[in-house]
Amino acid sequence: MEHFHVQGFRAAAVEAAIRYRNRLDLGLIVSDVEAVAAGVFTTSLVKAAPVLLDMEHIEDGRARAILVNAGIANACTGEAGLATARATARLTAEKLAIDERLVQVCSTGVIGQQLPVEPFAAAMDGLVARLRPDGLDEVARAIMTTDTVKKTAHRTVTVGGRTVTLAGMAKGAGMIMPNMATMLAFVCTDAAVAAPALRAMVKKAADRSFNAITIDGDTSTNDTVLVLANGLAANPVIEAEDAVFFPTLCDLLRDLAFQIVADGEGATKFVTVRVTGAANDQEADQAARTIANSPLVKTAFFGSDANWGRIIAALGRSGVPFDPYRVDISFDDAPMVRDGLGLGKDAEKLATEVLKGKRFTVGVDLKSGNGCAEVYTCDFSLDYVKINADYRS
Amino acid sequence: MEHFHVQGFRAAAVEAAIRYRNRLDLGLIVSDVEAVAAGVFTTSLVKAAPVLLDMEHIEDGRARAILVNAGIANACTGEAGLATARATARLTAEKLAIDERLVQVCSTGVIGQQLPVEPFAAAMDGLVARLRPDGLDEVARAIMTTDTVKKTAHRTVTVGGRTVTLAGMAKGAGMIMPNMATMLAFVCTDAAVAAPALRAMVKKAADRSFNAITIDGDTSTNDTVLVLANGLAANPVIEAEDAVFFPTLCDLLRDLAFQIVADGEGATKFVTVRVTGAANDQEADQAARTIANSPLVKTAFFGSDANWGRIIAALGRSGVPFDPYRVDISFDDAPMVRDGLGLGKDAEKLATEVLKGKRFTVGVDLKSGNGCAEVYTCDFSLDYVKINADYRS
Repeated sequence: MEHFHVQGFRAAAVEAAIRYRNRLDLGLIVSDVEAVAAGVFTTSLVKAAPVLLDMEHIEDGRARAILVNAGIANACTGEAGLATARATARLTAEKLAIDERLVQVCSTGVIGQQLPVEPFAAAMDGLVARLRPDGLDEVARAIMTTDTVKKTAHRTVTVGGRTVTLAGMAKGAGMIMPNMATMLAFVCTDAAVAAPALRAMVKKAADRSFNAITIDGDTSTNDTVLVLANGLAANPVIEAEDAVFFPTLCDLLRDLAFQIVADGEGATKFVTVRVTGAANDQEADQAARTIANSPLVKTAFFGSDANWGRIIAALGRSGVPFDPYRVDISFDDAPMVRDGLGLGKDAEKLATEVLKGKRFTVGVDLKSGNGCAEVYTCDFSLDYVKINADYRS
Repeated sequence: MEHFHVQGFRAAAVEAAIRYRNRLDLGLIVSDVEAVAAGVFTTSLVKAAPVLLDMEHIEDGRARAILVNAGIANACTGEAGLATARATARLTAEKLAIDERLVQVCSTGVIGQQLPVEPFAAAMDGLVARLRPDGLDEVARAIMTTDTVKKTAHRTVTVGGRTVTLAGMAKGAGMIMPNMATMLAFVCTDAAVAAPALRAMVKKAADRSFNAITIDGDTSTNDTVLVLANGLAANPVIEAEDAVFFPTLCDLLRDLAFQIVADGEGATKFVTVRVTGAANDQEADQAARTIANSPLVKTAFFGSDANWGRIIAALGRSGVPFDPYRVDISFDDAPMVRDGLGLGKDAEKLATEVLKGKRFTVGVDLKSGNGCAEVYTCDFSLDYVKINADYRS
């Protein structure tokens, strides 16, 4: 991919044969100088060993390197797994001659298997020797598991008269891939950002992107978003959410998040569920998520069925208060329900045409307030079941 | 079915052509004398018109008749729908020469279409003329929608020296059948029960049966359980939860509920999820439901995959506090996880054999308290998606 690099960052990936054979499965991203770092991690009570280690390492808001492997998630592996995560961070730090706390480690793959340290030890010399400015792209390939496409995005903006670049990559095809656990996303930027500001912006941008997508309502043990900002763009240091860098970061993360939805396990459609008119944003989000996670709604999307009864039923059990006889529902520009009542056969024909498309928006207006939210999801296809029933066989 | 009748109850079903053609679609159950009645209704905010009417009619704890139709659910139909529900109750009351408030009406079928009154008016004379003691069985057939089997159960017990009979029927193949909305269950008994006692027992028995099953986590707009007790067994009036009638009622409702799970849309397996060792029963139930509703867990069941990582991941996002490194998981008698760690390949082989069966129990012990709960569910198959994607086409 052209221009897929950021000044002061080098990266590489190798075949370490951790679990897969004959494919890239170990990647490393290194900032030449200490970078300001911020992360967002899974909210699951069951956090994988690398997540526990990263949360500890990133506390001081600094990082130099991200080491990532595919094949084994190092989740549900106990003290032994935590020791392994530490050992791989130490290997990286020693080879790079940096503080171990400046290394973030991420894993994706099978849950419940111990991650062997040997392949890391054997591969580390070659991995570091291979580091180069245009290596980010091969890291993006190395972290793929059941992903069918590589997911990358980059942006260039001007901050305080200086050109700032952001390059991001992500992996994930279900919110959790039980054996292939995890959504991972890494962003490298040369922007100069104060650590507290980066932390706040990454949290907020993740809420508007990765936390607004759902494939199947499940949450991984390994979900991680990491942003490293090395400051080499020499822009005036961004001290708070601003009007240029922050929207660009949001836009970049949304781009990556949408790529994950579009590549959702078995997905044939990209669906935006937009709820407006709720009492507040939180209730709008709750209503939108209930619709987006309903297997009955998602199978109807797969069947291009303008089945508004399933949407009303999902709203009814969402726990969000509303007046059933004020609800409007539309599919893109085609109105289907007004004041809780269906608009009839002709409306349904128009709505069905919309649903036959690959990308559409379900609009729900509760007409009882100013709360609004958007959630992004995919349909629920025969292939979703096939992938998840057959995965380990 | 032999003995499928209860003294003092008559029933019948006819082809009223409400939406279906050439099949029974309208049923009536009548108690010869006024019966004590109790009901449990959908907790959805979106309640169908017949549910709203029944909740009003059953307030005084008395009923004589249940009128039920399949084909159109009379849900999301506004004031017009409520007027229709009232009109059909009135038609029944006039023909039977009873108070309109003694009639319960239930509907199952398509959401969002108005239910025409004419077919009811045209069929009522024939329906009432056909009423007979052994007519319950044909009502059980009339209420089927996507159900592939008729669901009935009956029990006989001795209460205070008198023989008491309970006969029940149910329909439902998803928690909600979007267009074919609804789980319905009706029980007729000749037991003499005080109204407050019946209400309390039906609520509790429904919690242990219908409220403990889940096909897909969705809740219908029309879900209704009705129990009519006409007292003709002349037993000493049951004034509170007792040691004979109550467990029998529970057992009967569980029998019907389990028939619904076994006939779940596309189901190939019946799965009991048993969580023990939670801080309390409520948290155990929450954990069990999160597991039972996880599409990833359910597709793994379909694939006979002893995928304990998906179960741990579901627990992790359930919102229930627990120590990940104290969790035990087993499939029937085959232990798979101890203290949060997998027990290896041999254990997995045994577990996989269990999962190849048609009926098994997933046992999860959180080892942090005495709370326990069981939830009953089915797997998530290719046919579930086929049924729900293709239903209206």
